[in-house]
Amino acid sequence: MKKFMNAAADILTESLAGFAAAHADILTLDPSGKFVRRRELKRGKVALVSGGGSGHEPLHAGFVGHGMLDAACPGQVFTSPTPDQIVEAAAAVDTGAGCLFVVKNYEGDVMNFEMGAEMAGGHVASVITNDDVAVEDSTWTTGRRGVAGTLVVERIAGAAAENGMALEPLTALAKRVNANARSMGVALTSCTVPAAGKPTFEIGDGEMEFGVGIHGEPGRRRDRLKSANEIAEEICTAIVHDLGDRARGNALLFVNGFGGTPGMELYLIYGIARSLLEKQ
Amino acid sequence: MKKFMNAAADILTESLAGFAAAHADILTLDPSGKFVRRRELKRGKVALVSGGGSGHEPLHAGFVGHGMLDAACPGQVFTSPTPDQIVEAAAAVDTGAGCLFVVKNYEGDVMNFEMGAEMAGGHVASVITNDDVAVEDSTWTTGRRGVAGTLVVERIAGAAAENGMALEPLTALAKRVNANARSMGVALTSCTVPAAGKPTFEIGDGEMEFGVGIHGEPGRRRDRLKSANEIAEEICTAIVHDLGDRARGNALLFVNGFGGTPGMELYLIYGIARSLLEKQ
Repeated sequence: MKKFMNAAADILTESLAGFAAAHADILTLDPSGKFVRRRELKRGKVALVSGGGSGHEPLHAGFVGHGMLDAACPGQVFTSPTPDQIVEAAAAVDTGAGCLFVVKNYEGDVMNFEMGAEMAGGHVASVITNDDVAVEDSTWTTGRRGVAGTLVVERIAGAAAENGMALEPLTALAKRVNANARSMGVALTSCTVPAAGKPTFEIGDGEMEFGVGIHGEPGRRRDRLKSANEIAEEICTAIVHDLGDRARGNALLFVNGFGGTPGMELYLIYGIARSLLEKQ
Repeated sequence: MKKFMNAAADILTESLAGFAAAHADILTLDPSGKFVRRRELKRGKVALVSGGGSGHEPLHAGFVGHGMLDAACPGQVFTSPTPDQIVEAAAAVDTGAGCLFVVKNYEGDVMNFEMGAEMAGGHVASVITNDDVAVEDSTWTTGRRGVAGTLVVERIAGAAAENGMALEPLTALAKRVNANARSMGVALTSCTVPAAGKPTFEIGDGEMEFGVGIHGEPGRRRDRLKSANEIAEEICTAIVHDLGDRARGNALLFVNGFGGTPGMELYLIYGIARSLLEKQ
């Protein structure tokens, strides 16, 4: 394993310290280390709270700020945050208008945010994102996985909350965005969890995984390494097919890596995917 | 080689097309494909022009915009832009107040920007950045390499140009920033140039390179993989030592990868380096 790190057990703590120091104009790391929150809260605004396992850059701290999240609870790498993190984050950012929890559909996340909502009391609503079309159930998921569509939910609901939308319509909006979001991922190489110290899965030099999950869990199939055109076409076709009648009108196209895919490659894929969608 | 790409010869063209489509609110790719320029120019402002080989994300197109560059000329991967790219970019963005070329100290870049300046005629000044303390001369450099300090020059000179500073004082400012900038890099793995299809250098599982160049050229030494604390300390010590008497007062700390280092690791290093510098 080659990473810039000291002890594997300290990677999240040390990284969060640097992150909070670098962006002190926008956010604060709570002294407990359990959550990151906006430096300045807006009174009377619904608070958006999210969280999940770390290791999917820039989650789960990088989307806290104006028009986005009020707090985020980063779990250890690929590990859900604990209910007490969630309860304390909600208490810290709720200014009286309630909280919307944005939760990706993974069993640990769903369970801990549900527990957090119960313990928090007060006005808490949740939206569970499940945009990944690759597989119906997966290693850690009943139903579809919540992936990059989560960001779109956070961005649109975040803007609406900033503009004063109340908890009930905001929750409905977030659910509507999620219902219209679809995504699919591929992997060329495996992730390596620092505590494990070795790749999560083996994959050959000429192979790739279609529909992989964000923790390296299996997707639709293993295949030979395809060209960017073939990859973009397969993903776009899967998404458009899954959307069915909803695949009309304008689309918001969002291409992302998790911190390890160079911009040159992401923009290349974006250009191809955009052309494909524009033709439709 | 595992990259999201079609033919290696098309990677830059295809990536720039996607990049320009994604950021059409800020910039435009010239129809010739030779340079990227700000969508709206500010009349009477000195134009900042830079460029260099592609492959160092997000160079050489990602720093065009308000308070930064007016145009950037991306060469092929690890290849200098040609003089005609530079001449055409300068002509496209010079609104009468002249151009400042920001050039990293690599032989090809320096030669082609010099030729570009001669061919462009008009009011052109240049600053050559050479912030890398690792080695005095290197594979493609007489004198020190220009690396991440270039961004700091572009950002500070870009802001000053936006505020109306004329070409002569702007050039002096850019040179002063460069004279105070120091950097050093390390590599845990090799880069792979798409046209070559294999890693530029071999490096063992437990090894790293101190003072590596941005094209994978050798640095100070090969060593065993160190902890983040040890790496940050060695780099900071080398930089502070090199600065000598200038290493007093406030510092601007800038930690960067080139698109392949996850944010979690960069922030971890940032936090450590910040603590080290604060102590001094």
